[in-house]
Amino acid sequence: MKNVILDCDPGHDDAFAIMLAAKHTNLLGVTTVGGNGILENVTRNALSVLEVIGRTDVAVYPGHSGPCTAPLIIADNVHGKSGMDGPKLNPPKRKPETKHGVDFIVETVMHTDHVTLIATGPLTNIASAINKEPKIVERVDALYIMGGGAYAGNWTPAAEFNIYVDPEAAYKVFHSGLTIYMCGVNLTRQCPVTPEFIENIRNIGNPTSIFAAELLDFFAAGGDAHLHDACAVAWLVDPTLVRSAYLNVDIELNGKLTRGMTVTDLRPLQTAKPEADIDLDSPYRWDDAPQGSPFRGHEPNCHVGMRLDYGKFTQLLLDTLTSY
Amino acid sequence: MKNVILDCDPGHDDAFAIMLAAKHTNLLGVTTVGGNGILENVTRNALSVLEVIGRTDVAVYPGHSGPCTAPLIIADNVHGKSGMDGPKLNPPKRKPETKHGVDFIVETVMHTDHVTLIATGPLTNIASAINKEPKIVERVDALYIMGGGAYAGNWTPAAEFNIYVDPEAAYKVFHSGLTIYMCGVNLTRQCPVTPEFIENIRNIGNPTSIFAAELLDFFAAGGDAHLHDACAVAWLVDPTLVRSAYLNVDIELNGKLTRGMTVTDLRPLQTAKPEADIDLDSPYRWDDAPQGSPFRGHEPNCHVGMRLDYGKFTQLLLDTLTSY
Amino acid sequence: MKNVILDCDPGHDDAFAIMLAAKHTNLLGVTTVGGNGILENVTRNALSVLEVIGRTDVAVYPGHSGPCTAPLIIADNVHGKSGMDGPKLNPPKRKPETKHGVDFIVETVMHTDHVTLIATGPLTNIASAINKEPKIVERVDALYIMGGGAYAGNWTPAAEFNIYVDPEAAYKVFHSGLTIYMCGVNLTRQCPVTPEFIENIRNIGNPTSIFAAELLDFFAAGGDAHLHDACAVAWLVDPTLVRSAYLNVDIELNGKLTRGMTVTDLRPLQTAKPEADIDLDSPYRWDDAPQGSPFRGHEPNCHVGMRLDYGKFTQLLLDTLTSY
Amino acid sequence: MKNVILDCDPGHDDAFAIMLAAKHTNLLGVTTVGGNGILENVTRNALSVLEVIGRTDVAVYPGHSGPCTAPLIIADNVHGKSGMDGPKLNPPKRKPETKHGVDFIVETVMHTDHVTLIATGPLTNIASAINKEPKIVERVDALYIMGGGAYAGNWTPAAEFNIYVDPEAAYKVFHSGLTIYMCGVNLTRQCPVTPEFIENIRNIGNPTSIFAAELLDFFAAGGDAHLHDACAVAWLVDPTLVRSAYLNVDIELNGKLTRGMTVTDLRPLQTAKPEADIDLDSPYRWDDAPQGSPFRGHEPNCHVGMRLDYGKFTQLLLDTLTSY
Repeated sequence: MKNVILDCDPGHDDAFAIMLAAKHTNLLGVTTVGGNGILENVTRNALSVLEVIGRTDVAVYPGHSGPCTAPLIIADNVHGKSGMDGPKLNPPKRKPETKHGVDFIVETVMHTDHVTLIATGPLTNIASAINKEPKIVERVDALYIMGGGAYAGNWTPAAEFNIYVDPEAAYKVFHSGLTIYMCGVNLTRQCPVTPEFIENIRNIGNPTSIFAAELLDFFAAGGDAHLHDACAVAWLVDPTLVRSAYLNVDIELNGKLTRGMTVTDLRPLQTAKPEADIDLDSPYRWDDAPQGSPFRGHEPNCHVGMRLDYGKFTQLLLDTLTSY
Repeated sequence: MKNVILDCDPGHDDAFAIMLAAKHTNLLGVTTVGGNGILENVTRNALSVLEVIGRTDVAVYPGHSGPCTAPLIIADNVHGKSGMDGPKLNPPKRKPETKHGVDFIVETVMHTDHVTLIATGPLTNIASAINKEPKIVERVDALYIMGGGAYAGNWTPAAEFNIYVDPEAAYKVFHSGLTIYMCGVNLTRQCPVTPEFIENIRNIGNPTSIFAAELLDFFAAGGDAHLHDACAVAWLVDPTLVRSAYLNVDIELNGKLTRGMTVTDLRPLQTAKPEADIDLDSPYRWDDAPQGSPFRGHEPNCHVGMRLDYGKFTQLLLDTLTSY
Repeated sequence: MKNVILDCDPGHDDAFAIMLAAKHTNLLGVTTVGGNGILENVTRNALSVLEVIGRTDVAVYPGHSGPCTAPLIIADNVHGKSGMDGPKLNPPKRKPETKHGVDFIVETVMHTDHVTLIATGPLTNIASAINKEPKIVERVDALYIMGGGAYAGNWTPAAEFNIYVDPEAAYKVFHSGLTIYMCGVNLTRQCPVTPEFIENIRNIGNPTSIFAAELLDFFAAGGDAHLHDACAVAWLVDPTLVRSAYLNVDIELNGKLTRGMTVTDLRPLQTAKPEADIDLDSPYRWDDAPQGSPFRGHEPNCHVGMRLDYGKFTQLLLDTLTSY
Repeated sequence: MKNVILDCDPGHDDAFAIMLAAKHTNLLGVTTVGGNGILENVTRNALSVLEVIGRTDVAVYPGHSGPCTAPLIIADNVHGKSGMDGPKLNPPKRKPETKHGVDFIVETVMHTDHVTLIATGPLTNIASAINKEPKIVERVDALYIMGGGAYAGNWTPAAEFNIYVDPEAAYKVFHSGLTIYMCGVNLTRQCPVTPEFIENIRNIGNPTSIFAAELLDFFAAGGDAHLHDACAVAWLVDPTLVRSAYLNVDIELNGKLTRGMTVTDLRPLQTAKPEADIDLDSPYRWDDAPQGSPFRGHEPNCHVGMRLDYGKFTQLLLDTLTSY
């Protein structure tokens, strides 16, 4: 199992990210960041989820309460007042650590080989860790991100929530040289929470599953919910779940309409076939395109998730919940 | 037949736009604008095309030589030094008019009912006409634009050439209240120039067709050519050729990576179905979405072309060329 | 006397610009632009001022109703509902011309040698004239502008009203190659409207002076009024009134806080003398600085007014009003 | 004597800041930041200066090597390859601390009352400390900054070097609520390095003075040098040295020409007196202006240094150097 630090802001879909990571990786620790809710809430929520799934051995390190430059925006319209409304929860027994989340990331990566980072909130902590110790870039195996989108947003027409909250951090991360796997909303919208899926979870019948079902009852009440954050972990757990393209992704900081957009250069995927303007089977992939190709722009820096195997994804989640 | 003014910058694909418009509309005049080439060249090219197709009765009015704010960028890498390289052409016999293109647009629209504008170059002239006489907005039937894209660009990762050249003009046009039909590169990439298509044209055998085939020989030599501009006219001629969505489109002026992007709010088309993140069959269309829908953002202002019927489109072109 | 076209948006201080220009220049015509008030109002106000001063021989050509890109902002908080509140005015007898102001500028400049332009409103018409006929740039003697500021604004901390209203037009004008004299707020704040000055005007006793005094009664009621627009004409009439520096001025289009700022490179004026950080006597003037000077930045493109001789300025105004 | 942490990037003028702070404050520690030179160099230079002045008891804590978002720019054109060219220096005997500069700031401020911060480089460390522990804002007495300018820049026409290097950090700091004293280039250009001043220093004859004179020989060789950083410390040491105005200062992040500008709202200082467009004696000071004053804009957040007493300043430096 891979060594993993999960940086998150639970958040309903973060809870599923924790459940997957705690079961399928060697979870070295959880760090939290202001995002879906304020830092105090998302830290408590992380501790609660770990308690429900019987993994109080995993420590939670609070990181930044908000972006280093911009003011914090939270998504309480999606996740409720607590940041994870739905199931009734007692205050968690284990307390958060006093070590700052950024220091935990830096120290762990510098002393442990082959760490993979997963970030399912704004990239504030990850960027800050790179800033504090630039050497972590070459020591980390990879970074899986839930954030951005290949060609559309959700919080604004152009930007997805996690990147929109802290574009300056995203800019740092995407320019850092890290090996990045991006689960954008173009991918995560392919894993909707359907009523059938909720019932299948509830029917498993163990406490984790019932907790999970109650989370989804609240989350899906608005009618349009997706397990965004779980995708990032699932992709790490089973690489065959996601089909991706290796492309250049850059972050718009200045746009009046596009601030926080993950500007993805899709031109290598554009084809000359009628009725298919973007094609993962395009021969003009970055991986093999000759120098001087008319499609060549900036160097690729990101594995962009494009197609999700929904069947495999839901099965992985059901199997995982059953195993708790 | 509809009353049409065609504002263009020929340009290989503009030539096909002229051929379609001259046959299928009541073409009141052609105006030209600096874009694919400098104004002098694109004006001469417009006159040449009209001469080849035997329509020297149509006058050509040169408009702006470049954007009102930004400096002109031309696409001689695509269209060659003359702006329309390929066929050998004599200087056209008819001269351009002395009346400014913008004045022609304003005067024609103010004195003729039910004029439709088609713009296949940067929107400099159209914006300038609106600025000179705001009343044209309510007198024009519609504006068909080749430009922009629903979720990607061609000149930059985010922006298409025509809009990138003059984003300030595009901003004016998209905020004007005109009824707009946008043929963006997401649509026009669905009409590739294939070797078979060129041969079918050449085999027609009349002078217009041979001229057309020679244009395409040059245009498609780079391996990735599309009849962008012809789509805008074809859509007007046969509305069943294009499937569209009625969405909000805004223009990014300030972005460092996204200047000139047609920011299209695709969220009303996003669905909860697995493996289809954008769906023209989404029930959440602007046309019928209830007030307060979670998908509701800015008011729609543009019919965005999404799917092209390639078979019908090529047949329309072949029929048109045969008729000359 | 110089051939002058005055492009304005009266506006109280524009009225004084008209009075100066009508007396001391060969005033070929007045063009109007949306700015201090809406186009209809400022056009009527221009006609009224010309009627009061007995110069109904001067025609008024309405130009653009607002900026070509941005929406119009007006300053009715300063100039009142009519755009020139204060004196009671009957509707002017002469009507505005039907020729568009921009066409008047273009045609006049192309057919008359040695025209000087004065612009005391947003630069919309001037930019538009350059766009319609770029050749006017080399035919115009000079352009005097009331607008901008060497190191501060008035409408925002960084931007002055006229430039802020239409930064895109200002950008075009400052990059056009025209010989520009800029009366910014740093200069025009040196010509305050004092109670003594108003009384001196009223005491002249002729109808123009009484009208002028009533304008100033309203204009100065807020306690902080300056004859901004009159400065631009006064500088043309008597070049010894203003001390200037020849500097690079560029227009910020994108800033969140600084949009519409006339970014003036003051570094050539910065000195090594204690307690004088900007010095018009600096030896490092653009006019004579050696190539490679550490002060050298962008090429100068504008004569920036820095010091006004207030005594001469007020005397010029009093003499002019007396002469009516 | 006040408790002080000096955050710097020596840098010739930083060296004088260290000499002043080491003599006139209770210097708790020095932190370093990439700016005038790379972090390794400025850290070594800080240690060297402390060794020359006999203060190896003061520890040096390296902080960020560059901005958290933007790439680092250094000023080796001004300060030479070493970041502090001129005097021949041996490698310092004391080593830099292993604790990160930001952690030193946070821990010191949280455990020591009445700390004053002085920052004479980019604001990266200060912003990062606020981000890591927001509570320091209310515990710090004040922050003295060398950076920005009230109405002009030096690195660009609009921006001063320290702020230009890391505008995002400056934005955080100026929006933090800290009590800020800004020594901008408008102030620091009032303390030029004259040949007489260098000779006066050299004539003191002690090792620190000879070292100081050698620094200035190199620094002033270009002909236009000022002791920017020393001003910030001198102001803290003797508040009567600087006359200031309490104004709103904001940081432009997005401007194409103005990124990194300290946009200072000078309007409260603008007067109605002829020939004085900015006046420190204006009655319309923020300090006493009534609510609803026409000069009122954003709330003031910064004491902006406007006038320096050059005689007192040079005397303070000479006295200090004599005392070593």
